[in-house]
Amino acid sequence: MKPPSALATLIDALRALPGVGPKSAHRIAYHLMQHDRPGAERLGNALLNATSSLHHCAKCNTFTEADICETCADEERDASLLCVVETPADQAMLEQTMTYKGFYFVLMGRLSPLDGIGPREIHFDRLMKRATDGAVREVVLATNFTNEGEATAHYIAQALKARGLAVSRLARGVPVGGELEYVDAGTIARAVLDRRSV
Amino acid sequence: MKPPSALATLIDALRALPGVGPKSAHRIAYHLMQHDRPGAERLGNALLNATSSLHHCAKCNTFTEADICETCADEERDASLLCVVETPADQAMLEQTMTYKGFYFVLMGRLSPLDGIGPREIHFDRLMKRATDGAVREVVLATNFTNEGEATAHYIAQALKARGLAVSRLARGVPVGGELEYVDAGTIARAVLDRRSV
Ligand SMILES: [Zn+2]
Ligand SMILES: [Zn+2]
Repeated sequence: MKPPSALATLIDALRALPGVGPKSAHRIAYHLMQHDRPGAERLGNALLNATSSLHHCAKCNTFTEADICETCADEERDASLLCVVETPADQAMLEQTMTYKGFYFVLMGRLSPLDGIGPREIHFDRLMKRATDGAVREVVLATNFTNEGEATAHYIAQALKARGLAVSRLARGVPVGGELEYVDAGTIARAVLDRRSV
Repeated sequence: MKPPSALATLIDALRALPGVGPKSAHRIAYHLMQHDRPGAERLGNALLNATSSLHHCAKCNTFTEADICETCADEERDASLLCVVETPADQAMLEQTMTYKGFYFVLMGRLSPLDGIGPREIHFDRLMKRATDGAVREVVLATNFTNEGEATAHYIAQALKARGLAVSRLARGVPVGGELEYVDAGTIARAVLDRRSV
């Protein structure tokens, strides 16, 4: 006795969710079909809409539906500052602190050679091009203070300094091993103000 | 700084998944958009296809794309036996034991007055109609051996006996408090063979 094919296909497709194995996929599928079909339909449409309409900002690499994201289109920002973050969530945390008024570049990851994530995967060439546009004077490295985040910052710092740019790193107000997304805004604000040249 | 609307909509829609709060919804959305767009698209299509094509079998109430599910359409089965289970997963477990050759009725739940799940929600009227079709001689109650499953079995047994039907319950080979889905097939096989009249 197999589940009907639309259900089997759904159970299989749910495995795309991080951390969802065969057992949870079953449970989620039955839950949605028994108790929340409107929610399932909304989620289905949201997934298709997101995959078709979201792409990367031509300037900062974050997700956007336009060519250039809202942040990059903001003419009030200081074009001499470029902050490098791992993820849009990290960028959102920095914005919350209201201590930084420059632009961003979002790596959408961090170097992790063992997982096959190299310079290409973090869009290193685009970052170099963006940082050397002539307007940027200082690049603030705000990758996480994990081993991989530190290695990523080091790698980018070397390349940028070789091109004559000033490079700084958030101060170690952020706990060692900590991830920006989970740190309180006050600590991050401190770290922005105390950022040091590297 | 808000995420673009397609992303915000996706994050919100992901909350339909059981156990997914705002933080995990964020993480899942970014994961899918960064690392698995084909998976996201497949899941989107699977959800829409499942919500539009799956409905309840006219005879046993399980999910099917046809009017009558494969199991109910199987003419080799013993029409004098009707087994009542809580979920399709429980039915699948019983089928695996190869000890039961009758038909099924799937409640798609269990009585749980505190959660507002009464006779209507477990399709009690349809079960009564199905059980009194003239062919069914014995109804085997295979709801879980939890408090709610036992209460559900008791409620159904009273109603069926009042209509003159033989009613049995799986033997207590299933550990008290246990849920069928998580019990080994051997134990369930024993319980089917030892089922007792109630
Ligand atoms: Zn941008
Ligand atoms: Zn059926």
